[in-house]
Amino acid sequence: MSETPGRVVGPVLVVGAGLLGTSLGLACRRAGLDVLLQDVSAEHLRTASGMGAGRPVTDDDRPGLVVVAVPPDHVGEAVVAALEAHPTAVVTDVGSVKALPLATVRDAGPAGLPRYVGSHPMAGSERSGPLAATASLFDGRPWAVTPHADADPDCVESVEEMVRLCGGTVVWLTPEEHDRAVARTSHVPHLLSSLAASALATGPANHLALSGQGVRDVTRVAGGDPRLYSQIVGANASAVLDLLGEVRAGLDALMAAVADGDRAALEGALARGVEGTRAIPAKHGGPARPMRTVYVSVPDHPGELARLFSDAVASEVNIEDIRIDHDPARPVGLVELVVEDSRAEHLLGSLESRGWQTHR
Amino acid sequence: MSETPGRVVGPVLVVGAGLLGTSLGLACRRAGLDVLLQDVSAEHLRTASGMGAGRPVTDDDRPGLVVVAVPPDHVGEAVVAALEAHPTAVVTDVGSVKALPLATVRDAGPAGLPRYVGSHPMAGSERSGPLAATASLFDGRPWAVTPHADADPDCVESVEEMVRLCGGTVVWLTPEEHDRAVARTSHVPHLLSSLAASALATGPANHLALSGQGVRDVTRVAGGDPRLYSQIVGANASAVLDLLGEVRAGLDALMAAVADGDRAALEGALARGVEGTRAIPAKHGGPARPMRTVYVSVPDHPGELARLFSDAVASEVNIEDIRIDHDPARPVGLVELVVEDSRAEHLLGSLESRGWQTHR
Repeated sequence: MSETPGRVVGPVLVVGAGLLGTSLGLACRRAGLDVLLQDVSAEHLRTASGMGAGRPVTDDDRPGLVVVAVPPDHVGEAVVAALEAHPTAVVTDVGSVKALPLATVRDAGPAGLPRYVGSHPMAGSERSGPLAATASLFDGRPWAVTPHADADPDCVESVEEMVRLCGGTVVWLTPEEHDRAVARTSHVPHLLSSLAASALATGPANHLALSGQGVRDVTRVAGGDPRLYSQIVGANASAVLDLLGEVRAGLDALMAAVADGDRAALEGALARGVEGTRAIPAKHGGPARPMRTVYVSVPDHPGELARLFSDAVASEVNIEDIRIDHDPARPVGLVELVVEDSRAEHLLGSLESRGWQTHR
Repeated sequence: MSETPGRVVGPVLVVGAGLLGTSLGLACRRAGLDVLLQDVSAEHLRTASGMGAGRPVTDDDRPGLVVVAVPPDHVGEAVVAALEAHPTAVVTDVGSVKALPLATVRDAGPAGLPRYVGSHPMAGSERSGPLAATASLFDGRPWAVTPHADADPDCVESVEEMVRLCGGTVVWLTPEEHDRAVARTSHVPHLLSSLAASALATGPANHLALSGQGVRDVTRVAGGDPRLYSQIVGANASAVLDLLGEVRAGLDALMAAVADGDRAALEGALARGVEGTRAIPAKHGGPARPMRTVYVSVPDHPGELARLFSDAVASEVNIEDIRIDHDPARPVGLVELVVEDSRAEHLLGSLESRGWQTHR
């Protein structure tokens, strides 16, 4: 898809001019796109447009792409409203969870469903509101794009193109896998950070004079808006609970090791933590890894492309890029999946075992 | 004491030329002191002296101050050995826990005890060994000085002076309070960081592509040496376990709030985390706060000064500076405690209720 630039058609409408929405407007403007803004707060709208993030939308505007950037609890309803208000536009959102808003869109009926493709940039700030916004917020940051089984491939491509225009790096995941992934990489770390911070609140004030850089790092994200994060965690309850159960078992094991003076068990637990820090991928911009393209034949009817995404995700291989050759005259299209060379054989085997026809 | 500079007498002997010991040697050299080095590793000794941290100690050297900077499990025995080998020197250490090594020194008999005063700089690095050392490691960092009931006030002053010469900011705590304080500000945050990191190690690799700055911050300290940290945590088992019990109760409450969809409880828990992040004092170098000096009469015999420290610590007021006017000709000395103006009345009341004679 990266070889078909300019797929984002017509003006981009950003719904919600907070930190993310205003940053998105600024990033799209930087890319030369026409941006429209909408917000229930007249003040946010004035601030964001004054910063150059776009102009307030009018009834006459016909956006080609709508990006919903409202608080987590309102994403589903805002996406449904956007699909109805703009019956030809592609609609995405930048919310922190993906399964729950998709369920809301499904409940609203099949008409708009193919035009909705969720997304989620891994970018933010302890600050909020349009004044904290910056055009470079997404530069080099991972940005999940989460197609569902009924998504229109053209709409998926539009959203991917927008992510790239804003400077983000696309990470492909299904909505359900996305929610499990952010439970692990964001929501549960946030809750543990909050538990460490809460322990500071209950301690004698003079003890806190010993606070060093370590505890400041561990507790930094715990400073985020409790209302916002309770919405995020609440909307991802099932994945968060599964993982908190694992954490609780780990905590019990740690407590037993400390109580028993079992140094080997304690050291083993800490060594697993070290292993975890090493599993975090290096930031983008590091040395380029060798890539390989895997070719897959895809029957050209709804749902097949999404099924391929889903099966590729299930193989636990990072999909670095996707290119789709979909000639309307042929019943079968060819999809190119770009992955790390060392993972290509694993992906091929995994897809073949799921019935896909691959080409080496 | 800050008005009697130069109390650190004779060469400083640093036992253990790792990250902390070598940094300490460099910082003392920067302050113009003669520094001697001792290490079981000839390679560490060569590296540290080659970096300019001091010269290898010989049998003819007579250090005035010995600083023990060996791994946590060996601090107590190394302090006892230093007290015996250098019968007129003040001995301190830079270990992460303070009660356990003090108990070892007590067990070795009363002869050396008054000359030992523990300390602990809040400085470090994920790296270890002399090559990671720097003279500025302690600049502006809190550095606990932990006098015990049998400490000689002159020895306490020597250790305080060394801390200031190395660029550190003295924080006064009893050994027991210190250990409770670091459980809260260091050991338990480290263990929670490790639990968050461990959850990454068990997850699908492609999920980790969504790792952002938040999880990197939360898990950074978990990358520290498991062997070192298992020694530190193991040596502070009681304080760590007490606090982990509180954390476990907090985790259970969080899990219940998520499972029940109780948004108010979840938001309340997160709000306590925010409160905790705000309780961390601003780093030194921020705007100066108005200070006030509290005067206390202290009977001039062993243990009284330590009892005053202990009572001041129990009042939960940060002691910013201490000056001692101890005229040997008088049976009672005057101690000046410098504290934040807003806390002075609280400290006065607290000390008076414990039987101290104060002067306003």
